[in-house]
Amino acid sequence: MSPARLETFADGVFAIAATLLILTVDGAVGGEGIDLGADLAHAWPAYVGYAVSFMTIGVMWINHHTVMDLVARVDRRFLIANLGLLMCIAFVPFPTRLMAEHIRGAGAESAALAYGFTLTATALFFNTVWFYAAIGGRLLRADCDPRVVAGISRTYRIGPLIYLGAGLVAFASPTASALLYLAITVFYILESSIFGGRQTVGD
Amino acid sequence: MSPARLETFADGVFAIAATLLILTVDGAVGGEGIDLGADLAHAWPAYVGYAVSFMTIGVMWINHHTVMDLVARVDRRFLIANLGLLMCIAFVPFPTRLMAEHIRGAGAESAALAYGFTLTATALFFNTVWFYAAIGGRLLRADCDPRVVAGISRTYRIGPLIYLGAGLVAFASPTASALLYLAITVFYILESSIFGGRQTVGD
Amino acid sequence: MSPARLETFADGVFAIAATLLILTVDGAVGGEGIDLGADLAHAWPAYVGYAVSFMTIGVMWINHHTVMDLVARVDRRFLIANLGLLMCIAFVPFPTRLMAEHIRGAGAESAALAYGFTLTATALFFNTVWFYAAIGGRLLRADCDPRVVAGISRTYRIGPLIYLGAGLVAFASPTASALLYLAITVFYILESSIFGGRQTVGD
Amino acid sequence: MSPARLETFADGVFAIAATLLILTVDGAVGGEGIDLGADLAHAWPAYVGYAVSFMTIGVMWINHHTVMDLVARVDRRFLIANLGLLMCIAFVPFPTRLMAEHIRGAGAESAALAYGFTLTATALFFNTVWFYAAIGGRLLRADCDPRVVAGISRTYRIGPLIYLGAGLVAFASPTASALLYLAITVFYILESSIFGGRQTVGD
Repeated sequence: MSPARLETFADGVFAIAATLLILTVDGAVGGEGIDLGADLAHAWPAYVGYAVSFMTIGVMWINHHTVMDLVARVDRRFLIANLGLLMCIAFVPFPTRLMAEHIRGAGAESAALAYGFTLTATALFFNTVWFYAAIGGRLLRADCDPRVVAGISRTYRIGPLIYLGAGLVAFASPTASALLYLAITVFYILESSIFGGRQTVGD
Repeated sequence: MSPARLETFADGVFAIAATLLILTVDGAVGGEGIDLGADLAHAWPAYVGYAVSFMTIGVMWINHHTVMDLVARVDRRFLIANLGLLMCIAFVPFPTRLMAEHIRGAGAESAALAYGFTLTATALFFNTVWFYAAIGGRLLRADCDPRVVAGISRTYRIGPLIYLGAGLVAFASPTASALLYLAITVFYILESSIFGGRQTVGD
Repeated sequence: MSPARLETFADGVFAIAATLLILTVDGAVGGEGIDLGADLAHAWPAYVGYAVSFMTIGVMWINHHTVMDLVARVDRRFLIANLGLLMCIAFVPFPTRLMAEHIRGAGAESAALAYGFTLTATALFFNTVWFYAAIGGRLLRADCDPRVVAGISRTYRIGPLIYLGAGLVAFASPTASALLYLAITVFYILESSIFGGRQTVGD
Repeated sequence: MSPARLETFADGVFAIAATLLILTVDGAVGGEGIDLGADLAHAWPAYVGYAVSFMTIGVMWINHHTVMDLVARVDRRFLIANLGLLMCIAFVPFPTRLMAEHIRGAGAESAALAYGFTLTATALFFNTVWFYAAIGGRLLRADCDPRVVAGISRTYRIGPLIYLGAGLVAFASPTASALLYLAITVFYILESSIFGGRQTVGD
């Protein structure tokens, strides 16, 4: 199988998982309310959750392509590792709904933990995908810039720690945990668009 | 990342968002009614909403390709702007359901406003995408016809105003607002198919 | 826009509409029953409806490619006609659910009519797409075999009549109408796989 | 139609069916519980079912590409056989939900049988697709290694028996049947990633 076929399949899962997030918003506003305007205002965590998870999945889609651009060939182990990653990506709509429904209630801690653990697992699979391809240059193109490879390795290593940390904050304050998820997404967007936007991907 | 990869991902989100609109119709006709014929007739706003939103998303898909045909390269800022645009497109099924359920009830004003604000935000992101690529010719192909570029800039600038205007009409009459959304879609279809159909895209 | 881009978008809508049909089956078997085996047996119309609509959408996907293989270029009117066709394809899961839920009850006539009208509209849009491309050879490749073009025109012309006829039978007997939809799908599968399978597409 | 077009459509159905599995998890945790943490813990069969079905569909996607890599051309019968296969793949989310909801209750036997029959039918269609292409080398590339072809034929032949066997175990013990589905998936993953990972696909 060529890297291009894997990219097509992965693009499909990323796009569907992101688009299915709208079902979270759909579920947050019932059709029976007597004051739709108040219902819509009250559902604001669903909109924030939708935006945070959509952009998180979107940034991960960009990162996945950054990796695939460096990959020259794929083997079955690499495909299986990617399936694990996509399994986590497709799972994101579920904790997003939990956050939207419970962040203001008794289940806030559980919801924030579920969100954090899902994204920690996603980041761990991203590391599996990357280091399986990169260690010893196993699947990478021969002409990859070693500094680019080292830079990605450095960034990926801290990803699981960041999401695990933000998740564990939920034991102290689920709201702080939710704000950290928002901040992480805003940071990734700014880091891409303000600081890194004019550079070549990977520089 | 090549423009082609962005197009594949964007095509996926456009196609999924349009196809998920059927869940709006599904939700408008319950399975418990004693007279299915009457239930189906009563649900007519869901069919109109389905058609209007499907064709709106479809015309936006055509417009997105018109832009991408002029784009020679993408950078990370352009990708992030496109993610924002796709986040709005994927949101459209939600206000479509609100319109279908509430346009004949007390929530009509809120529903029409939600629809208008969603499409205004979508049009604003379309402008962000376009002007980021076009200003100073930053990402455009060197051989773009300047009159084509100027024509798109002129058309895009008024898009947010049209949808914001149609949305604000809801304070006076939600029905008038809904009719305006219908008229805007019909206009875009006619403008493409009757007047512009035989010309080269962008002329 | 190249024909290839339209095919990618259309493939997406065909694939998503077909895959969403499983929600019909999901809705037909509640989670609260005391005897799951009996519930699963009782839901047999949902399985038949799933199979008939999945294969109908699949055969239409094959036919759409047969048309696109003959098309050399697309214009905006052709794109709009295709959007109308895809709008009908994405609608199919809705009348499929109606059939699955109501074919054994008081709403059988309405459900069978809804199914027939949806597929009649789909067939009409297929004609619009085809004859817009084919009349005067407007969008076709120069080397198309005139007998192939005439053969498709002949076949497509009777499509709407077949589905309209099967739909109108519902006034006499919704069950007969449902059996006709099943028979039409079986005929298309047999016609493709038994009689036409070894020939070149279009012969 | 070229093999590439079939692959694009098939990739779409595989990706959508896998991503829709999250609706199973969504359905397993209601929004009304008083103790979200306990609800999330209680829903563990939904997570296992999600993972097993996601990886099963993923491995089948890899296998489908292994077949398509050997295929030089497609005819209409091959397309129809593939539609049958995809119809089964898109059905998998339904018995997955049944397993998640009923494996601990009175419906466990029916749920395990439904899962087993769905995967048996999927494996039978895989055989139909493969042997239609392979017998007499009908659709295969001329340069296929006969040992590779014989190896796939041997592996595919036992697939339906394995899933039928695991399903029939449900008459004795639905739990044993569920554990067998898990074991089969783990075996396919290990067989791909540990034993076969470094080899060329098909060796």
